[in-house]
Amino acid sequence: MVRRSGRRPGNQDTKQSILESARTVFAEAGFDKASVRAIAAAAGVDPALVHHYFGTKEKLFLASMNSPINPAELIPEAMAGPREQAGERLVALVLRIWDSPAGVAAVALMRSAMSNEWTARLMREFVVTQVLRRAIAELDIDEKEAPIRAALVATQIGGLAMIRYLLKVEPVASAPPERLVAAIGPTVQRYLTGDLPGVFDA
Amino acid sequence: MVRRSGRRPGNQDTKQSILESARTVFAEAGFDKASVRAIAAAAGVDPALVHHYFGTKEKLFLASMNSPINPAELIPEAMAGPREQAGERLVALVLRIWDSPAGVAAVALMRSAMSNEWTARLMREFVVTQVLRRAIAELDIDEKEAPIRAALVATQIGGLAMIRYLLKVEPVASAPPERLVAAIGPTVQRYLTGDLPGVFDA
Repeated sequence: MVRRSGRRPGNQDTKQSILESARTVFAEAGFDKASVRAIAAAAGVDPALVHHYFGTKEKLFLASMNSPINPAELIPEAMAGPREQAGERLVALVLRIWDSPAGVAAVALMRSAMSNEWTARLMREFVVTQVLRRAIAELDIDEKEAPIRAALVATQIGGLAMIRYLLKVEPVASAPPERLVAAIGPTVQRYLTGDLPGVFDA
Repeated sequence: MVRRSGRRPGNQDTKQSILESARTVFAEAGFDKASVRAIAAAAGVDPALVHHYFGTKEKLFLASMNSPINPAELIPEAMAGPREQAGERLVALVLRIWDSPAGVAAVALMRSAMSNEWTARLMREFVVTQVLRRAIAELDIDEKEAPIRAALVATQIGGLAMIRYLLKVEPVASAPPERLVAAIGPTVQRYLTGDLPGVFDA
């Protein structure tokens, strides 16, 4: 549904329409297979207009999800530093974002993803292609192992967010970030770079 | 809202009314502080009738949540065995339940808990008092450390359920259980019984 507002109806409606088409196409095809061309077609506009309004496909994806953060900047920053503390830095980054005003949007998105299949797909694409894939790329991890390592990281980070911010289970809900980093950082580190016997193909 | 059905209206209505009062009181007061007396009063019946229909407070709680499993039986079973593999056994148990027909109800409950504050409270009470507290008790863990250890286990087990069953992120979504046990069992073990420097009060 296109929201009609009083001011500059043409531009605003076009932008809204592109964002809605983007959500549909990204959820249906996934981030990698979605094309700006297909999104433009679904919105009934020229691809050049999509680029004009939103820049790259990646930026369009972030805009379509109302993402308050840009993983392309944050993840390389967090991953820079000693490889053996990457897990701690990733947990610290997640807590910093979710504890900030941006966390409110993140909680809302997560709630919605739990009850809505389309939001779930968008969130999965966001987490996998924008967050985890970048983290893995920075760490130079074996390509065959990367998908399972990334998904394991998602189980721990997603669960931390759920227990701390959605279900608010104490004492995790009000624990100081540094204690959670000390507890959960090593888990994420092991999933990222540790030996995982019995986990990969025989 | 009490559902009116044609058959044995008195009994069915009374039972429904007790279950609804139970959900309200358990969510408001928490499992420990909720009393059968208060639930009976809210339903406008005699406490003896609540015991007659549902047995103990614990059984009433399971009934009020439509729990397809009884943690009082399952957890001690899973925890029995070598202490250093308790984490693996707990992950294996969770996967066995969620992969079974009972998992459908569990997914529905989890979805609902994400979007509904009352269901979230009931689920939190269920996970903490019925599942984690029992697991911790079986392992004879320091009382002061138990709450944070239990909540850390919840972050990993809850996240596993979310990624595998709700968001369905591959390859975790379709991984054979034994690979997930190999990957995630050691995490849960560390949270249950491992050294966790920097996590507890200084």
